[in-house]
Amino acid sequence: MEIALLGGTGDIGEGLALRWARDTDHTILIGSRMPEKARSKADAYQTQLTERGVEHDVEGYGNEEAAARGEIVVVSVPPQYASDTVEAVVPALDDGDVLVSPAVQMTRDADGFHYDPPAAGTVAEAIAAAAPAGIPVVGAFQNLAAGALTDLDNDLAADVVVTGDDGDAKEVVRSLAEDITGIRALDGGPLANTGVVESITPLLINLAMNNEGMHDLTVRFQ
Amino acid sequence: MEIALLGGTGDIGEGLALRWARDTDHTILIGSRMPEKARSKADAYQTQLTERGVEHDVEGYGNEEAAARGEIVVVSVPPQYASDTVEAVVPALDDGDVLVSPAVQMTRDADGFHYDPPAAGTVAEAIAAAAPAGIPVVGAFQNLAAGALTDLDNDLAADVVVTGDDGDAKEVVRSLAEDITGIRALDGGPLANTGVVESITPLLINLAMNNEGMHDLTVRFQ
Repeated sequence: MEIALLGGTGDIGEGLALRWARDTDHTILIGSRMPEKARSKADAYQTQLTERGVEHDVEGYGNEEAAARGEIVVVSVPPQYASDTVEAVVPALDDGDVLVSPAVQMTRDADGFHYDPPAAGTVAEAIAAAAPAGIPVVGAFQNLAAGALTDLDNDLAADVVVTGDDGDAKEVVRSLAEDITGIRALDGGPLANTGVVESITPLLINLAMNNEGMHDLTVRFQ
Repeated sequence: MEIALLGGTGDIGEGLALRWARDTDHTILIGSRMPEKARSKADAYQTQLTERGVEHDVEGYGNEEAAARGEIVVVSVPPQYASDTVEAVVPALDDGDVLVSPAVQMTRDADGFHYDPPAAGTVAEAIAAAAPAGIPVVGAFQNLAAGALTDLDNDLAADVVVTGDDGDAKEVVRSLAEDITGIRALDGGPLANTGVVESITPLLINLAMNNEGMHDLTVRFQ
């Protein structure tokens, strides 16, 4: 498949790009508002992969061209830019494309991190509100620590909860998630259930801050 | 230690009572609004333990007497009764006692379960608002499925996140949690961080509903 990572120059985008490039044959399209930055990051990812003996092209584009080329469009931008990013690529989205929401909106104070969802309810629902009719949105990958994902020496053993209202789209994303070695993807139900998934992320960060020896935490349900 | 389980006739209370009785020497005090019901349940728990070769007294009392006798007072009642239950036992609480909040307030609709915290922010904070000054409140045990806990044939491998503003009280509860075989207790930070812990519970239930072969889920952070 063709996977576009809008904002794929950030750390979660980098982690997903590296993992999919290493573990699958999917086409990896890095998007950025600045095409030159996307190309430069794509080159850097590819260099890192080549050093590990992985032959896999990683391409860089402006967000709109990445979205036009991708069938799966991961909105891996900071959460406050998620809606605007989707609105900017609406003309590039085709029937059959799927938007994926991995971001979480949080605040930080002296107590740690707190879940602070947007007015739409969740980042995933904010993306759904900005998406054209007929383009399904799937929540996934919110609870993967970027550090755990980008370090390819780290053997993942993580669950990814997938939420969405379109069963086929959810199944495609579930399958893409499980294409990454060490990920088990679970069905979290409809998009309305995304809030409880997003809210785990600040907990993971707080646990890493408050407990010695814990860092880059992921979550397993058993 | 003396552990009082207010509403210990319910399933989470039962699970904690059975586990602590089996795995520790702590005194287990089952509380109920109806002392006779507490005694009857305590007898039933003890019978179940005896059949497993565990010799450990389990005592039943009215909630107020259980709270008076206990140093650790677990408010294991349905969340909507948590504040009233604490208010009713205020005269029975002594300096040095610790209140523990394991409950989670949820709603259910066709999509599944949703986190629906009380106006105080969390059940733990509602309990803190009802508690006398100087009695610390610790959030813990919210993410343990009652079914996983009450079935003593089930080997637990679960994390318990402990939150609270009083470091000593939090450490006592952390230690009590780890007294249960298979539980690892993690510091989740101050009581203000309890929301993200409570909100995992509806996710666990949704995952069990939506994924074949999953039931009575617990969570691990790694």
